[in-house]
Formats: sequence, structure tokens, C-alpha cells
Amino acid sequence: MIFKKRTHTCGELRLTDINSQITLNGWVSKKRDLGGLLFIDIRDRYGLTQIKIAPENTEAYTKAIKLGQEFVISVSGKVIKRESINKNIPTGEIEIEVSEIEVLNESEVPPFVIEEDVKASDELRLKYRYLDIRRKNISDNLILRSKVSHIVHRYFEKNNFVEIETPVLMKSTPEGARDYLVPSRVHKGKFYALPQSPQIYKQILMVSGMDRYVQICKCFRDEDLRADRQPEFTQIDLEMSFVTQDDVFEILEGMFGEIWKEVKGIELPVKFRRMTYDEAMKNYGSDKPDLRIRGDMKIENLSEIVKNSEFKVFQDALSVKAGVVAGIKLSGKEVTRKIIDSLTDFIKKLGFGGLGYLKYNSDGTVQSPMTKFLTEEILTGIKELFKAENGDTVFILSGENLKVLQSLGSLRLKFAEDFKLTDETIYEFLWVTDFPLFHYDEEEKRFFAEHHVFTMPKDEYIKFLDSRDKDEVESIRANCYDLVLNGHEITSGSIRIHKPDIQKKVFDMIGLTDEEAKMKFGFILEAFRYGAPPHGGAAVGYDRVIAILAGLKSITDTIAFPKTLRATSLMDECPSEVSGIQLEELGIEISKPAVKQ
Amino acid sequence: MIFKKRTHTCGELRLTDINSQITLNGWVSKKRDLGGLLFIDIRDRYGLTQIKIAPENTEAYTKAIKLGQEFVISVSGKVIKRESINKNIPTGEIEIEVSEIEVLNESEVPPFVIEEDVKASDELRLKYRYLDIRRKNISDNLILRSKVSHIVHRYFEKNNFVEIETPVLMKSTPEGARDYLVPSRVHKGKFYALPQSPQIYKQILMVSGMDRYVQICKCFRDEDLRADRQPEFTQIDLEMSFVTQDDVFEILEGMFGEIWKEVKGIELPVKFRRMTYDEAMKNYGSDKPDLRIRGDMKIENLSEIVKNSEFKVFQDALSVKAGVVAGIKLSGKEVTRKIIDSLTDFIKKLGFGGLGYLKYNSDGTVQSPMTKFLTEEILTGIKELFKAENGDTVFILSGENLKVLQSLGSLRLKFAEDFKLTDETIYEFLWVTDFPLFHYDEEEKRFFAEHHVFTMPKDEYIKFLDSRDKDEVESIRANCYDLVLNGHEITSGSIRIHKPDIQKKVFDMIGLTDEEAKMKFGFILEAFRYGAPPHGGAAVGYDRVIAILAGLKSITDTIAFPKTLRATSLMDECPSEVSGIQLEELGIEISKPAVKQ
Repeated sequence: MIFKKRTHTCGELRLTDINSQITLNGWVSKKRDLGGLLFIDIRDRYGLTQIKIAPENTEAYTKAIKLGQEFVISVSGKVIKRESINKNIPTGEIEIEVSEIEVLNESEVPPFVIEEDVKASDELRLKYRYLDIRRKNISDNLILRSKVSHIVHRYFEKNNFVEIETPVLMKSTPEGARDYLVPSRVHKGKFYALPQSPQIYKQILMVSGMDRYVQICKCFRDEDLRADRQPEFTQIDLEMSFVTQDDVFEILEGMFGEIWKEVKGIELPVKFRRMTYDEAMKNYGSDKPDLRIRGDMKIENLSEIVKNSEFKVFQDALSVKAGVVAGIKLSGKEVTRKIIDSLTDFIKKLGFGGLGYLKYNSDGTVQSPMTKFLTEEILTGIKELFKAENGDTVFILSGENLKVLQSLGSLRLKFAEDFKLTDETIYEFLWVTDFPLFHYDEEEKRFFAEHHVFTMPKDEYIKFLDSRDKDEVESIRANCYDLVLNGHEITSGSIRIHKPDIQKKVFDMIGLTDEEAKMKFGFILEAFRYGAPPHGGAAVGYDRVIAILAGLKSITDTIAFPKTLRATSLMDECPSEVSGIQLEELGIEISKPAVKQ
Repeated sequence: MIFKKRTHTCGELRLTDINSQITLNGWVSKKRDLGGLLFIDIRDRYGLTQIKIAPENTEAYTKAIKLGQEFVISVSGKVIKRESINKNIPTGEIEIEVSEIEVLNESEVPPFVIEEDVKASDELRLKYRYLDIRRKNISDNLILRSKVSHIVHRYFEKNNFVEIETPVLMKSTPEGARDYLVPSRVHKGKFYALPQSPQIYKQILMVSGMDRYVQICKCFRDEDLRADRQPEFTQIDLEMSFVTQDDVFEILEGMFGEIWKEVKGIELPVKFRRMTYDEAMKNYGSDKPDLRIRGDMKIENLSEIVKNSEFKVFQDALSVKAGVVAGIKLSGKEVTRKIIDSLTDFIKKLGFGGLGYLKYNSDGTVQSPMTKFLTEEILTGIKELFKAENGDTVFILSGENLKVLQSLGSLRLKFAEDFKLTDETIYEFLWVTDFPLFHYDEEEKRFFAEHHVFTMPKDEYIKFLDSRDKDEVESIRANCYDLVLNGHEITSGSIRIHKPDIQKKVFDMIGLTDEEAKMKFGFILEAFRYGAPPHGGAAVGYDRVIAILAGLKSITDTIAFPKTLRATSLMDECPSEVSGIQLEELGIEISKPAVKQ
């Protein structure tokens, strides 16, 4: 088809272009009829330009009158100075005096108007995603995502990494989440799996000597989706040989540094804060603490202070081995009866009998249902520990250590949200290190690997790999780390085990026999027999990073064609039924639903 | 694990580093014992460095003596000048006087020695791919591939393209090759498909206004694999709005120009040669002619010259509508009886009764079984047409036009190979344009789309969309193009139909009812109703481009973990059996093989 091609985009023309003869191609956005003169905003992904059609230009005017919303047009004309300047758009000082209009394509009336404050449900927007992407709110995210990917590629190239594509059709290794399977037609009854991550392949690449590997790649998890998860997601996957944890940190700090500099104009610290898992749990009741909360709101352990109290709730808690009494302070906020009740409900849902509190009134009195059980000494101790002042409230929980900490951590986040205590203008990066290697499952009566089975224990704990004492084994800390940003885990990684003897002890610990290990991980264990170097790496949750950069709560709008929580695409209606021939060729059948007896 | 980390790579040290104290980490490549002094080559992906251990250094020497092939070591010592320089490697002027050796990991004896001329079968190499990648022949390809991908990313960024990730879990659209299917667990009985290409999504992105889209992405085809195909392959996928064919060509010419300049130091022509499909078929009997062949060896049509011949073979051929007599000339090569016999066999396999030839002897005589049937005038005509000289041979076929041309095209390639007529030092890029839009299938008695159904016919042929005359319909040429490099199709693309009325006519032509069209392509047809801009694009076969750049015949060694012709991975042994629980969760069963009656 022959048509007049654009000389400029719709976001490009300025006062300096006055009197130029130009052509624009784009979509009809707004049309206004001002006493004969027609004004139309023409849109493309670069911006908007106002065009003006006078009735004297009969041919153009006749066409223009008939233009509907979202028609695709080519307009030619002269750039002129605009009388009423629009300061909201970069092209707002000019307009186009149209000499010629060509309709490149028509459009039916769209199901919703393409505008920033869209008046359409999420479902409708996803069904007509192509119209939704015409909105600057969405297209800007995609453009940002592309920009970040270029920064990432360049950064790793500069740092001598090799980008290597690992297989998408790989072996199903039933560890971690559920695999998406792909039936093989050639080998009937056999299946490929889509990668949950290229973990095994990147470790094999280290064995192969490709000592600095990176890939921006799609990964897949067939999970019952929690809010804001996607069945296919993107990660920046990297692995390095002959390194320690610090080298991995340095590379990622550099990467995030460049992204934030280029995208936000912000200089991040050269080195990010670090905190061990134990510290994070103790102080924030979370392994991904949000450090943007004003006043920090650390958890304080009260066990020592209250240990001689006769208050039965505390006594009961402290009488068991892992019992604890702890609290957090909410500063200078009016805590009403209604708020206490709602917080008590919140805490009860987490499995507690109730929520203790000490409210320091403005008149210097302390209001609390517990005061009668607590001595003056204890009350003073608590007040001093928290440096509590009039107007503050201290909330106290008692019970099993981990549960108390996590619940206080949840309370901390709830306070931050309810009382708007989060500084939304800052970015708080934090390395959380030294995660536990194992946890003991009381139901299955055995140890499980906290992360994946190739995670290297820290040197000083290797001796405990031979222990079976629950406390000793659970005390083992690993060279395993997360990078947390504003309370989101955006990166996870570890130094891996490269020594067969240590690997065997880890398998033994989780009760994996040699035979089972071989069946599950045979090819990587075999690879490790031929000179595996010390290595480690990480995977960055790319969608989340983009969402944070774009200021979005959800990752959905960082993705061109996202899926719903039920893992469907509303636009193309997949998954969908396929033909019997397709199934026959694959040698599979759809199971009949079991008939209820 | 604490170990001495490298200060340099094994490919880095030079004479300028003499006397530096350094540490290298790498693999034991070669070990030589020269009268007490031990020499070891230590290897990583950057190169090889020779290290020297004197028996006086008892601790290091004792360790070194025990080192086996492919042990991973850390060596520290002083850089010294080497006595006998090795000019084959960049580090060949220095060696390391070792003070300390640390064994980072041991290795079993590898199943083959890691060396350039590897003595291992392809199967063994693929099974132990991690060892194979330690060979410079393979790792260099992966590094090249990474380098090219960076050039491509940068090029498209510079040209204002947006890199957008399209879904991997998509809808099965049973057009083209066979889809890989992914059963849905949440929606039992329904399936996703892996993309054969992001074709539909990139066209939808054009509807969404993302006017310059690119992606380096994995695609999947469940085909019975021909030699040198992979079930998962990579393409550079791009699409542009408000463009004509020339714009797409220009962007790709620029891309290949930058790749060749950066990788090969070669300046490609700013514009590549162009040839229509009809010209290519007529002159080379192929839609992907290799233009590197010396003397060009064009096919010449002899129908006019021989039309009055009484030679029955020619008369028969020319008596049918699409009949032709044509030939090619092989210049200055000795064509023996044995060669004629072998060529005749070759041609018979292509379905001909025999191969005509005219051999111009060095004494000026013509040797041919046909001379007795041909007049002097015809013989002169043929000789003049081919400008045949003594020592040349003209080969002639007659029959149905397309078959004759394709067979002469095959003969041309066979001559090029057998007589080494291809200039392997050059890169011949060629746009083949104006492909047919439809072909008529005699068995199914209907028209099929030659390429995909969204291909735009050239303006001057649109009138024939209403015809059902086989000749008229088959004469329709499309805005459809391939880029051919050295006889390989490395890119394919087209301008797409953006007008619903033209799209409907194309569907009508191939007998697709509105309902069927809606079922197969519903969501894209719906998208096209809301203002689709004129658009077009292409997809570049990335694996092949890398293979050509690397000088490889096959794409296999451009891929880190390739699959075999039977679509298996010998390293991880996928596809593999999965557990009954996995299948149950997916609601599928493996069909029982039909019992033979």
C-alpha cells in the first residue's frame, strides 16, 4: 500500500520547526469542532500533536469530519505557532495547519476511551490489551523495561560476562515448585519441562569454564498463583566462578547502581547495607525488612525484663525453650479503642490469644490491661528500653520465638501502611545474608533444604553436617543471600557446593539416597566429578525491579501480555482446547473426571 | 570456602608483567616433567599460561606431581620470561615460577582429552557437553554469539526500537508447523502452545502503537527434524509500523552492516543486491541462490532456440503449457564419462529420464549424445547463448518449468561443491523479493498461502484476489521477502495486511470461512478492527547467522546445549518420564499403544 510516510513522530515538533512542511502518521485521539475549525489530536507512542483543519480545505475537511476515534491517519501540512499554548505536552507550542489527510485505516468504536485515567475494568483492559498499551501509562512501562534491559546488557558486557541461552525444553527435576510439562511427540510418554530457573545449566556452564555467565530469561512455575505472581516471569540470571559472596555482591551493586543512575538520576551507595538473616528476624521479624519506615520501629526483646514477672501469659511463654516476650513501639500516633480492637483481631488471626499494649498517655499515665500484673520495675524497664514518651504505644506479644517475631514484623508493616510511615521517595537496598541451610519439619520428621540443595554452608558450620542434633543442624548458616529493596526480595542467590563430599553430606542430611540423588540430579552430579570450580551467583526478579522503578504496586503492567491469577490470557483466551489429532500425535489423553460415588 | 582468588586470567599475562606476583585459577591442561622441573599449562576460557614448579619448592612440587588432567587449581608465583617462546599463544613469552599451589577441586579422568582436534564422537561430546565447551572451538562460538547479541541490542536501541517480551505460554494456532503443547493444570483439558514465532503478538504490538518492536527470542517447532534444525531455535524478531518494504530492508542492512564490521572488520554494501523470486528461480533455480559461485553459472532458457528441433524429448517438453528446455554451463572442468554417469544418476533421482550435455572438447569438436538430433543452427545457438568455449560443458534438462529450474539449481550447487567453485572468503547478501502469495494444491484442489496468511499482496495484484483463475491467482506477487546469505535463507519477512477487506479476500481464497478464521485467528482479527496501522517486519534466523560468522556448517555448535535430530538432550537425557502424580495433577494420561490385531 502506498501512503504518505511520516517525516516526524507525534512527539517531536517544536517551535524551531515552524513553517516546515511535515507529515505525521498516527491515531485520532481527540476531535474538537470549534465553530467550523476542526482540531484533532493525533497520537503515537512518542506523543500527541494538535492538527487544525479549516473548512476552506474542502477535501481534507470532508475527510476529517468523518474521522472516528482511533482511526489511523496520515496528515500533511505546515507547522505553525499555536495561539493557546498547551504546557502539558512537549509539542504544545505548535500545531499543524493541515493540507492533506489520508485515512490509513478505520476503527470501530473502541470498548473504552484511550486516556490516562481509564474508565475500564482490569478485565476489559486485559482483553483489549492492544488498546490499553496505547495508553501512555502502559507503553511507558514497556519502554522503561526495554531501556533497563539495555542498561543490563551493556553492564554485563563491560564486565566480561558471556550471555548464554540455556534450554527452554529441559529435564523435569521435581524439586521446588511444580514444573510446566511439554509432552514429547517423538518419544511418546516422555516429557520436557520448562525451566523454573536455569539453575542447573548455569552451574554446568561454570563446570564448562564460562566463568561469567548472564542471561535475561523467562522462567516458569506452575503454582497456584498468589497475588502478583505470573506463571511466566523474567529473571536476570547470573553465575560466576572463582568468586566469593563479596564478588557477586559487587557485580550486582554495580548493576543496580547503573540502572538507578540512568533511569532515576540517583547515585546509589557503592556498597549496600548488609544484615544477617538472624539480625533481620530479630529486629524486623522478616527476612526482607522494609527499611524505609520512619523511626525504624525495631522489635525489642523483653524476655529478660519480664522474666521475673508473675504475669501468667509471660510465664507460660518463657517456660518453653523457644519462648519469648517482645514488642514494638508506635510513636506519637493516637491509638483509639477501635484501633486496639482491630489490631487484636489482626493478631488473633495470626494465632495469638491477644495483644498486649502499654499506652503512654499525654498526661504521663500508662494505660494498659497488663499494668496490674507488672511491677513498677518491669514497667520502667520496658519504658526505658523503648525510650517511650508520652503519646507512644508499645505493643507486646509472647509465645514461640519465630511466630512472635514474624507477627511483630507484620504489625510493623501494618502500622507503616495504616499510619503512612513509609518514605515513598527513597530506595533502601539491603543484603540479607547467612540464611539457615536446613529446617526441621516436625510432621515429616526430617530436615529440608531451606533453599536449593547446592547451597554452600559457611565454613565454620561444615562440622555440623555430620551432626543430627536438631539445634546444631538448624544453626548451620549458608553462603546464601537475598537482596531486599523496600521490603521486596528482588534478588536471591548463593555460593554453591562444588565439592562432592560436602554435596553428599547435604543429600544425606535431607535423606536423599545416592540412588535418588542420581535420579534427580544425575547429570549435574556427574558434571561435578570433572573439575567444578568454586562458584556462585544470583537471580534478579526482573519484573519486580521494573515495577519498583515504574512506581507500580503490581508487576502486571510491566508485562506486555500478562496472565491472570488463574494463569489465563484474556486477550487470546489461552489455555484453550486443542484438536484430537494434536493429542493423538503426542500420545496423550485427557483424563475423564472421576465420577462421584 | 576460602581460596586464593585469581589476580589475572590465564590469557592475560605478557612480558610487561615480568616480576609481578600473581595468582591464576584454572584447569590443568597439560603436564610435562622435564628432568625434575614440572611444566603445567593452566587453562581458563581466556587462554593458557605455562607454570613451572621446581622440586626445591617441596610443598608445591609434591602437590603438583599428583595433579591430574582437569584438576582445578589456584597457583601463585612470579611472572618470568620464558626461555623457549611459544608463538602460538598470546601468553607464550612468559611463564609463572610457582611459589604456591592449591587444589580447588579434583577431577576424574575425563572421557576425552580437551583439545582442539578432539578425538570423540559427536554423541560423546554432547553427553559431556560441559567438557566440550572447555574446548576453545566451542567456547569461542558462545562468546561470539554473546558479542553479536550485544551488537544487535545496541543497534536496535540506537534506532529507537523497543524490546518487548512476548508470551511463551500462548494460544495454539494450528497453522504452519506443529506446536509444542503445554497442558494446563488449572484448566484441565486445555493447553498452552509454545510460540513457533511471536508473529501474532508482534502484529498486535503494532496495533498497540509500539511502532518499532524487536526481540531476540526462542521459538519452537515440533517438526520431524531435518538435518541442522533444532526444536528450539532463536530468532531476531522485528516489526515496524508506517513503513514499506524498503524501510525494513534498510534497518536490517544496517544491522548486518554493524555485525560484519564489528565481528569481521568487513564493510558490507550499504544496500544489498535485490532480485525478485521470479528472477532467482529463472536464473538460479532456487529462491535462495548462492552468489559466491565463480562464473555465476546462470541457468539459460533454451526453449526458443530448440523450439523447432525434431528431438522428441524437447518436443514433448515444449508441447505442454509449462514445458521448458534449459541448461547450465560448467566452465573449463574435465568432465569424464564417470562424472557424466554420476550426474545422470543424480538427475534421475530428481525424476528425469536423463541428462543432456554438450561437451566442447579442446580440439573444437562437440561431444554429445544429442548432436545427431540437433541442427547446426541449434547447436550454434546454444553455443553462442552460453558463450561456450573449448573445455566447457553445457548440461541440458527438459520438462516442467519449475522442476527443470530447481533441478538445474541443484546441479549448479553440486558443481560448486564437487569442483570447489565457491569463493569461501566472501559474503553475498541478497534480498529475494516478490514471492508468490498463493499456490494451488492439485491434490486438495485448493489454494494455499505460500507464507503466512497476513502477507500483503503487491498493489498491482490486489485485483486478482477476486479471481479464481489458477494462473491469475498464482501470478499474485506479495510484499514478501527473504534475505539470503551465501545460499542460506537467514531472514524472512513481509509487509502485512492491515485492511480487513483484503484480509477477508485472502481467507476466502484459501477457503477459510468467517467462522473458521475467527476460531483460528479471532483475537488478532478483533485487534485489527481497532485501527491497525500499515506495518511489516521480519525474523532473522539467529543460529544460522552465528554459524556463518563462526565458519560452521552446522548450527549445533553455536548453541550451548543443543538437542539431537531426535529432539533429545544427551546430557540431561530429556525428554524423560515423569511421575504419575505430575500427570494426575495435569489431568492427562499417556495413551496405551494400540494393540495390533
